[in-house]
Amino acid sequence: MTAPVPADLISRLKAVLGEGGWSQDPDRLAPKLLEWRDRWTGQTPFLALPGSTADVAAVVGLCAEAGVAITPQGGNTGLVGGQIPQGEILLSTERLRAVRDVDALDDVMVCEAGVTLQAAHAAALAKGRRFPLDLASQGSATIGGVVSTNAGGTAVLRYGTTRDLVIGLEAVLPNGEVWNGLKRLRKDNTGYDLKQLLIGAEGTLGVVTAAALKLFPVMASRATAMVGTDSPQKALDLLARAKDAAGGGVEAFELISRVGVDFALKNIADQRDPLAGRHDWYVLIELASGEPGSAEAAMERLLARALEDGLIADAAIAQAEAQARAFWSLRENQSPAQKPEGATWKHDVSVPVSRVADFLDQAGAAMRAFAPGCRICAFGHVGDGNIHYDVLRPEGAPDAPHAARRDEGSRIVHDIVAALEGSISAEHGLGAMKTAEAARYKTPVELAAQQAIRAALDPKRIMNPRVLF
Amino acid sequence: MTAPVPADLISRLKAVLGEGGWSQDPDRLAPKLLEWRDRWTGQTPFLALPGSTADVAAVVGLCAEAGVAITPQGGNTGLVGGQIPQGEILLSTERLRAVRDVDALDDVMVCEAGVTLQAAHAAALAKGRRFPLDLASQGSATIGGVVSTNAGGTAVLRYGTTRDLVIGLEAVLPNGEVWNGLKRLRKDNTGYDLKQLLIGAEGTLGVVTAAALKLFPVMASRATAMVGTDSPQKALDLLARAKDAAGGGVEAFELISRVGVDFALKNIADQRDPLAGRHDWYVLIELASGEPGSAEAAMERLLARALEDGLIADAAIAQAEAQARAFWSLRENQSPAQKPEGATWKHDVSVPVSRVADFLDQAGAAMRAFAPGCRICAFGHVGDGNIHYDVLRPEGAPDAPHAARRDEGSRIVHDIVAALEGSISAEHGLGAMKTAEAARYKTPVELAAQQAIRAALDPKRIMNPRVLF
Repeated sequence: MTAPVPADLISRLKAVLGEGGWSQDPDRLAPKLLEWRDRWTGQTPFLALPGSTADVAAVVGLCAEAGVAITPQGGNTGLVGGQIPQGEILLSTERLRAVRDVDALDDVMVCEAGVTLQAAHAAALAKGRRFPLDLASQGSATIGGVVSTNAGGTAVLRYGTTRDLVIGLEAVLPNGEVWNGLKRLRKDNTGYDLKQLLIGAEGTLGVVTAAALKLFPVMASRATAMVGTDSPQKALDLLARAKDAAGGGVEAFELISRVGVDFALKNIADQRDPLAGRHDWYVLIELASGEPGSAEAAMERLLARALEDGLIADAAIAQAEAQARAFWSLRENQSPAQKPEGATWKHDVSVPVSRVADFLDQAGAAMRAFAPGCRICAFGHVGDGNIHYDVLRPEGAPDAPHAARRDEGSRIVHDIVAALEGSISAEHGLGAMKTAEAARYKTPVELAAQQAIRAALDPKRIMNPRVLF
Repeated sequence: MTAPVPADLISRLKAVLGEGGWSQDPDRLAPKLLEWRDRWTGQTPFLALPGSTADVAAVVGLCAEAGVAITPQGGNTGLVGGQIPQGEILLSTERLRAVRDVDALDDVMVCEAGVTLQAAHAAALAKGRRFPLDLASQGSATIGGVVSTNAGGTAVLRYGTTRDLVIGLEAVLPNGEVWNGLKRLRKDNTGYDLKQLLIGAEGTLGVVTAAALKLFPVMASRATAMVGTDSPQKALDLLARAKDAAGGGVEAFELISRVGVDFALKNIADQRDPLAGRHDWYVLIELASGEPGSAEAAMERLLARALEDGLIADAAIAQAEAQARAFWSLRENQSPAQKPEGATWKHDVSVPVSRVADFLDQAGAAMRAFAPGCRICAFGHVGDGNIHYDVLRPEGAPDAPHAARRDEGSRIVHDIVAALEGSISAEHGLGAMKTAEAARYKTPVELAAQQAIRAALDPKRIMNPRVLF
């Protein structure tokens, strides 16, 4: 818990921000102090609602002078508590909502931090372009948030994470100065790439106020299929073939377990079993191409050969948009479908793609030994080596004993991940929740370098002080 | 010029490196002290030739302790003097030559710093994969060098610069400690991305000893064409159409001027005029697709419509590999073809893609006013907004007066670039040559941030001290 904020600072902040630029109303604050899964609740003496980059600079400048800490917040969709203040000034970017420009020739769009991902998608589409960062939370998640957490999502396989999609940034640094790095240059080799340092820094090196984002063509053909197979290794073999067959055109390659399909059929409305038989594993594949008809042709070739060779047991190519949406719904409901099933240890891990099957084997054996009867629901972006690995209490068992063993169980999973040279936070970040755990797996050399950089740019450690190292 | 290196440090370095691990032989040193265009010559008391990462760590550690400066060098192909020592210890990565691994399923290759780009290409191809960093100097340029300078090249439009192609790094930090960031993870959100800080740092934040590089599928179809048009603006319009038509499949979009074609025909052996008539501007286009036949079809569609609409005046699609090579030869000889033409002011600039025509108009008018009779040879990666903008002395005029006005002339070009929100070093970096010039165009906020980061990681400023801010 952070030290109390001096009253005179609050007065000065109010004066600078003016009417509508701040709030201390508990009803206004409440939704910003509660994480959406109810795992994190916070408190703050003051909500700053800056309406411009200059406002953000004024707030950060005053806080820097006073040595008072700030927690920046975007759409409040983070899963690791990084956006929830514990006594800090809360700085919301919700009023920074302008799409400043969309340029279809430069293939660049400039959005302010508070623009939702969905609004950014729409602005790009209106100019015939695509911004290919696709998240389940895109109606709420904001550009400032996805940049600060280097969000991933379902199209990383083709387009990369947010880190790969940002071409320029504007930010207020921890000393309150505005850094204008809003370039729209594809190439610029004139020193360290500060934007790459701010991306994924979880608000610890400044407040992102706007981003220049890369746009891409809308694809002329797209094919979506659901495949059934009996092992993750066969899914990986299929991935290798898909990459060869589609020449860079694999947009999504998502693994789902039969456990997860059953949870969705049981707990989520309007879900259908995607294939006639039952299979231990399912893969949702999406191919896209700039050439009309090309994605469909590649998908048919790929699946016909995979069936012939026994790599997969069954497959369905979506024949209409509605069927494709149904396949995606099954995937996107993997997390909500678990909720009614009780206490869960959740993990967002990555390993090299080639080790995904090893990870699932080793973690599965370890979990069955440690928590007999547990139900493992593994799913996610297997094409990126990123598995959401969720371990649920045994069916019908009480929640509390399982919940109590969470840290111990997670440690086992994370140790396996580390042994496979993986990451304990593939896309969610560290926030307040995973920093200590991550420090366990970092070398002293890396921790020291990260701390030195942070201290150099934020000597008073006022930016999101409880987050990261 | 750096202070003399203490004799006892030299003795300790010799002892650590052992036989074959160092040299003071002038003949051995000479090629490493001369930049290939003869613009930079250097000197060093000692050439370190470490054979392993541990050797590099020992050298940097000893130098750090003694506060003695180091200049790292890869293939010595840099154009801005960043790799040429002026009294510093010279650390060559030439013995770090192992390709440690090529994994076609992970789509990752791990190369040590001294592996040439050509050797990396070959290692990837042997496993059916492509490493898509294509440079004219790839026979000499090394992985450590391309990482440290964030090299670009001719396939940036599709694959990005080196920054986009590195998935992990191993480096010796300025304190002599080894940072092992050689992960092969597509997603890893556990703190600041140190590798992005080292990429393009021109050796100032440590010595890159190995890199994990992203691999891509070899494309099933590829089409190369040369197009003639009468203005850069029409070339830009064609680029927009090409992006739409090829859905991400535009690999190269290179502009060449008629001046440059004439220089090549005159000064380089075995060059042919690519089209029947004469055109003010030429564009070399390369499309590639994962679908057999698709690139050719897209190219034909694109060019037929562009001809019909008067966007281009003529076009030839290469009918065989030899013709495609001839087109590329014309492009790659743009720089060598200028040499016999005398004194030249060279610039490596970028602007937003949409401003390329504006830049060429404004810079052309300014140069013709400032240096009447000058010959402008502009060429390059127009798809990335990156123009190599070369201003040659008037035909038949003496070299000296033109050479003497280089700084003044370049300042005019750079001011125009800055006004168009461009970069004065798109892909070559700053080195020792352009740092002061770049500082003119950076804000104090950005300079202070860069200097703070450097001081945090290299408080004694021993790593390539004359380079960058």
